[in-house]
Amino acid sequence: MVKKPTPDASRRSEKSRRAIYEAALALVAENGYPRTTIEGIAARAGVGKQTIYRWWTSKADVLLDAFLDLAEQGARQSGEEPGEAAEVHGGIPDTGDLAADLKAVLRATVDGLLDPKFEAPSRALAAEGLVNEQLSRELVARLLEPQLQLYVHRLRSAQESGAVRPDIDPRIALELFVSPVAQRWLQHTGPLTYAYTDTLVDYALYGLAPR
Amino acid sequence: MVKKPTPDASRRSEKSRRAIYEAALALVAENGYPRTTIEGIAARAGVGKQTIYRWWTSKADVLLDAFLDLAEQGARQSGEEPGEAAEVHGGIPDTGDLAADLKAVLRATVDGLLDPKFEAPSRALAAEGLVNEQLSRELVARLLEPQLQLYVHRLRSAQESGAVRPDIDPRIALELFVSPVAQRWLQHTGPLTYAYTDTLVDYALYGLAPR
Repeated sequence: MVKKPTPDASRRSEKSRRAIYEAALALVAENGYPRTTIEGIAARAGVGKQTIYRWWTSKADVLLDAFLDLAEQGARQSGEEPGEAAEVHGGIPDTGDLAADLKAVLRATVDGLLDPKFEAPSRALAAEGLVNEQLSRELVARLLEPQLQLYVHRLRSAQESGAVRPDIDPRIALELFVSPVAQRWLQHTGPLTYAYTDTLVDYALYGLAPR
Repeated sequence: MVKKPTPDASRRSEKSRRAIYEAALALVAENGYPRTTIEGIAARAGVGKQTIYRWWTSKADVLLDAFLDLAEQGARQSGEEPGEAAEVHGGIPDTGDLAADLKAVLRATVDGLLDPKFEAPSRALAAEGLVNEQLSRELVARLLEPQLQLYVHRLRSAQESGAVRPDIDPRIALELFVSPVAQRWLQHTGPLTYAYTDTLVDYALYGLAPR
C-alpha cells in the first residue's frame, strides 16, 4: 500500500525542494560546477543527503531541475503583470506583426540574461557545458531546445501567413537573431541593448542585400 | 651596452618559447584554466619558472600568446597549400561574389573549430571566459575581434559594390552568420556542417521575408 502524504508532509517536501534548488544555484554560482557537490547542497539547504538522493540521481540532475524551476518562476511572476517576459516561457505572441513579436521577445530575453539572479548560475552551468559534452546535451534537450522550438512555432505561423518564405528552415532561421544575443552574452563580444536586438530582427527578416 | 643575442641563443629562445606554448595549451586542455599554473607550464616545458616570467606576467598572458601563435601557425600552414583556411587569418577573399566568399570562409571556420588540436584548449579558455569577465575581454580584444574585423572589411567592400545595403552596420550584420556557428560550437545546439553554414549566408543576405 502506498502511503499518501499528509498535507503537512507535502508542504514540508515542497519547502525542502525549494531550499535545495536555492542552495544548488547559489553554490554553482559561487564555486563553479566542479566544486559543487550533493553534500554541499544538502548542508546549505539544511537537509540530509538522503533527501536529495530520494529525488535526484546526480548533481547535474538537481541543477537542471533548479534551472527549470527558475525559468518557471520567472514565467509565473511575469504572467502576473503584463510584462513581455511572460512570452519567452509561455510562447511567443502572434499579433500578426512578426517583426514586432520577435523584437518584444528578444527584449525580454535581454532582460532575463542580465538579471543577476539568473546570470551567475547560468554562466557557471554554461561554462561547464563547454567542456562537458554530456551535461551540455542535457542542458540543450531540457532547457534550450524547448525555448528555441517556440521560435520555430512562431516562424511556421509566419510562413502560413506569408511573412516568411515557405522554403526557409525555421530551426536554422531563428539562429540569425537568437545566436547573436547568445554569443554576446557568452563571450562578451558586445553590449546587449534593445536597439541591438531590434536591428538583428530587421536584418534577419529583410536581409543584408538590397531589395 | 645591450648584449646582442648570438644566433645560437636566439634559436634556444625560440625553442623554449615553442615548448612553453605547447605545454600551456596541453595543460589547459587537460586540466582546465583554474588548475593550470605557471609552475606546471614551466615543468612540462622543461624550462625554469624565471624563463616564463622573463617574457610574460601571468598565465592568462602566456595562454593568449599561445593561442595567437596557434592561429598564426594555422595561417602559415594553410598559406602553403591552396586551402580555404588561409583566408580566415589572412583576410577574407574578395572575388566580387559576396555569398561565395562568405561561404568559403565559414566552411574553413568549421574545419578550424573541429580540429582536435584547436578544440580542447579553446573550449577550456572559452569556459573560463564565461565566468571570468576580464579574461573574456582580453580574449575578445586580442583574438576574436580582430577576426570579426575581417568580416567588417569585406562587408564594407560589398557596400561599395552595392551587394549590401548602405544603411547596414557591418559589425552587427556579420553576427547573423558568425554567431550561429559560434553558438553551435559553444553550446552543442546543432551540427556544424557546410550545408548549414551555406544556408546561414543565404538567409542573412536575402532575408527570411519574401522578396
